[in-house]
Amino acid sequence: MNYPNGNNKSARSNRTSNVLGNKMYGNRGMTLEEDINTTNQYYLEANKAVIHKKPTPVQIVKVNYPKRSAAVITEAYFKQASTTDYNGLYRQKHIDFEAKETKNKTFFPLANIHEHQLEHMKSIVQHGGICFLIIRFRYYNETFYLPFEKLLMFWNDKLNGGRKSISYQQMKEEGFLIPFQYQARVDYLSIIDALYFAV
Amino acid sequence: MNYPNGNNKSARSNRTSNVLGNKMYGNRGMTLEEDINTTNQYYLEANKAVIHKKPTPVQIVKVNYPKRSAAVITEAYFKQASTTDYNGLYRQKHIDFEAKETKNKTFFPLANIHEHQLEHMKSIVQHGGICFLIIRFRYYNETFYLPFEKLLMFWNDKLNGGRKSISYQQMKEEGFLIPFQYQARVDYLSIIDALYFAV
Repeated sequence: MNYPNGNNKSARSNRTSNVLGNKMYGNRGMTLEEDINTTNQYYLEANKAVIHKKPTPVQIVKVNYPKRSAAVITEAYFKQASTTDYNGLYRQKHIDFEAKETKNKTFFPLANIHEHQLEHMKSIVQHGGICFLIIRFRYYNETFYLPFEKLLMFWNDKLNGGRKSISYQQMKEEGFLIPFQYQARVDYLSIIDALYFAV
Repeated sequence: MNYPNGNNKSARSNRTSNVLGNKMYGNRGMTLEEDINTTNQYYLEANKAVIHKKPTPVQIVKVNYPKRSAAVITEAYFKQASTTDYNGLYRQKHIDFEAKETKNKTFFPLANIHEHQLEHMKSIVQHGGICFLIIRFRYYNETFYLPFEKLLMFWNDKLNGGRKSISYQQMKEEGFLIPFQYQARVDYLSIIDALYFAV
């Protein structure tokens, strides 16, 4: 997830710690991204929703075009995303979210979200979309749905000199624990159903 | 647009022919993609809509992590997109479209659209999104909005042994000419307004 900083190694060791922290579910070292992709694939096949991860943004610098074979990119760089990673459509509503994991036991640092992402999320909500974060605390193997409106509250607190993070305790109070299902490993649509479509 | 086949050169010569075919507008050799990006940027800044192009999908094979500098991708390949290039949100509606240019004077070949893209578009419409193609005939410098439902009609004709293309004449009859505006160079939202939000 942290490609632009070049810390691929730390991403790999994080994955190990995810396995160690695996208490509650049969989640054998899958990253949050893998779990969400699997979930979206299931939603798509079950015709429940059409939600995809956007490709990783890459600045392409050099490309070779060998005869009789595919073009090879030989120099490129990771770019910072200006939007969120996932979007799509569910029950006629535009869905837009960002997913983040933290190894931290006690809080989620707000520095994980970039300001232009926050601005993007604001626009989405203004224009009638459903916007949220999916945040996994790896140590507990717990994954939360945090509505954008709650994120904005914490963000504004920070701007006014408050904490630069959301504590695990606050996450449990303001967010919603996303249930693990066999096929929908991060069944976030169940939370959207409860929040937006409850009878 | 045709990266995966390695024909970068033809893309560049196409651009030249766009300049030559430039009759009606002050469109000095901008590609359709550039025009749409400019348009989307204007929509975003005017707070009319939140619509973005997805990053080009790339299969990353090798990455170097030099000390004290950014990660460099040294081997990667263009992947075929499984969805469309553009999506977003306008007047609470999910928007999803693909954009294509053709140098052909008399028809638009349906081979420009892949079957999995058609399946994706079908799902979008099923789930309540607005889906369409933006097709530019470079020779005339005319850009059309073709509703997905019309595309599907031509597609099914093809499956039943009919033509493998949409003629320029049919495009004029079944599609909608997108007006050129100074800031919204491909003002497709004006067509959406007329089709979906007319009083």
